[in-house]
Amino acid sequence: MRSVFWEDNQLKMIDQRILPARFEIVAYRSHREVAQAIKDMVVRGAPAIGAAAAFGLALAGYESASASARELLADLQAAANTLKASRPTAVNLAWAVDRILHTVKKSGQQNADELRQLLLTEAQHIADEDVAINKRMAEHGAALINDGDTVIHHCNTGALATVDWGTALGVIRTAHEQGKRVHVLVDETRPRLQGARLTAWELEHYGIPYEIISDNMAGYFLKTGSVQKCFVGSDRTAANGDVANKIGTYMLALAAYDNGVPFYPVVPTSTIDLSLASGEQIPIEERNPEEVLGIQFLGEPVAPKNAKARNPAFDVTPNRLVTGIVTENGIAYPPFDVNLKKLVVKNS
Amino acid sequence: MRSVFWEDNQLKMIDQRILPARFEIVAYRSHREVAQAIKDMVVRGAPAIGAAAAFGLALAGYESASASARELLADLQAAANTLKASRPTAVNLAWAVDRILHTVKKSGQQNADELRQLLLTEAQHIADEDVAINKRMAEHGAALINDGDTVIHHCNTGALATVDWGTALGVIRTAHEQGKRVHVLVDETRPRLQGARLTAWELEHYGIPYEIISDNMAGYFLKTGSVQKCFVGSDRTAANGDVANKIGTYMLALAAYDNGVPFYPVVPTSTIDLSLASGEQIPIEERNPEEVLGIQFLGEPVAPKNAKARNPAFDVTPNRLVTGIVTENGIAYPPFDVNLKKLVVKNS
Repeated sequence: MRSVFWEDNQLKMIDQRILPARFEIVAYRSHREVAQAIKDMVVRGAPAIGAAAAFGLALAGYESASASARELLADLQAAANTLKASRPTAVNLAWAVDRILHTVKKSGQQNADELRQLLLTEAQHIADEDVAINKRMAEHGAALINDGDTVIHHCNTGALATVDWGTALGVIRTAHEQGKRVHVLVDETRPRLQGARLTAWELEHYGIPYEIISDNMAGYFLKTGSVQKCFVGSDRTAANGDVANKIGTYMLALAAYDNGVPFYPVVPTSTIDLSLASGEQIPIEERNPEEVLGIQFLGEPVAPKNAKARNPAFDVTPNRLVTGIVTENGIAYPPFDVNLKKLVVKNS
Repeated sequence: MRSVFWEDNQLKMIDQRILPARFEIVAYRSHREVAQAIKDMVVRGAPAIGAAAAFGLALAGYESASASARELLADLQAAANTLKASRPTAVNLAWAVDRILHTVKKSGQQNADELRQLLLTEAQHIADEDVAINKRMAEHGAALINDGDTVIHHCNTGALATVDWGTALGVIRTAHEQGKRVHVLVDETRPRLQGARLTAWELEHYGIPYEIISDNMAGYFLKTGSVQKCFVGSDRTAANGDVANKIGTYMLALAAYDNGVPFYPVVPTSTIDLSLASGEQIPIEERNPEEVLGIQFLGEPVAPKNAKARNPAFDVTPNRLVTGIVTENGIAYPPFDVNLKKLVVKNS
């Protein structure tokens, strides 16, 4: 089951807002709907929103009535801007959209309908490639896991966050399939609880043993010697190995580092942004405070009426806290400013 | 308004499980009910449960039918054991109960009814003293706050966590009353959300500006230079300055330290346990996993049915991450193994 797929001339996606309570597939026919769905987090996870945006651009091709390739390309450019504006932090979104635009332009194809077909082929290619990349990445990462390890995992980085298989969770899945016993402490990942809702749902499905913890408990388990490794994803990694990922990753990395527990981001090279010297240049999205305030405890709202909240969606983990960065081309170790580049270049 | 008080021959307490949705006072007539209420967290916060247990012992005096002082003391000893077993981490609970037992024994009073009266007087004294101690502590701590500071606060340490005024939150209240502008980033404090529910409710009441954040966001705000100080409470502090406090305190302290932001536990000397050389000896309570799993997001349960969770209620922050420890007798700075003792001894 893919989280993002093309069927009946529509983009279909698992609605990740309502899991694990309900499993529903939503269908989209326009790029604007797709941009909104990305904004609303129907789909989330850097690789998954990259694929969704790619199919969104394919939809934009069919939406455009232009008969000429030139006019179609102008419509695509406008659609690309709309899609890229939907979420600012993950780099795959822009990467996937730009890659398709580049390919269709470079093709020199003058027939608008042929261009439309090419868009879809490229989007499908990005989706298929994502699965293949995840599996290669998972092989590299699984070698880091020993039989009997307990690992902490933050947010959701599984099949739901990608097109299929997963990044950090893909590593855990592959280790499990290799017959290694792995126990996962699942950070619930406030405010949207992707860990408790989505990662737990996936692990349940794969038969991998897990326990959910509040994000603020990770330090306790790391300090009491219960954890051997941490695996997280990344929405954007800078050239120096600074890693932007779901809010809370930085505090987890601090706790891992303080206790000598290896900390591994698992990142497809498409999420590495060599144009940024450091993580300080990565834009951090701040989302609706309602995501923080809108939970209930014992059936009651948790905050006073009119309470205010802040809601930065990501943070940046400095490279000094990172043990190694797992990519589909191998694992980069420090100095990251030298070694990360080698793995990215290999890919291009 | 006190969180714990004696009225009409009953112990009355604000029910902290249902705030901020509803404000209700619950009345108790037996020490067993009080022990259960402490276990269920009707009342929480180290100083508040100390006072509640003290009044619980006074109730035990009235429950006992014994006519002789010797028999009454035996009944009180049994009640003391029940009360002390209700929660293991906070030291005030045992401290308050033992202090009253010691006083009544030392009194040499042979009249059982006089002893009953003495119990109540002592419990009332502990409650009143707690308020006075908090105000002295708050004066010392408020001197650390500058006009315009933004501070992070974890859990609830206000009037609700004590008998009145508060420890860490008491420091913030006093600074506010001194006319200093203070902005509070309120850690929501999973799993029971004492920050979002109780601290926000108190700050709203005092007119102190605040914003709620998920615990895992503290690192983001510390790293981006938005925070000048952190204030937390403590359930038990060891002789070397290791601080046991609500789960998540350790990760907050790590993030403060990593960014050079001062980190101050605010602790009455009654919570300092000089009998423990280090925090590793402090017992950590693990509570019902339902506290982690039992929240709803967008009206839906957050975890798959049958999901498992862990729920350690406290963690230990090592003294190397602590800037200073604020007590009613002044502020201790490192080396804590030398300087903390001086402030405690002053009190005894």
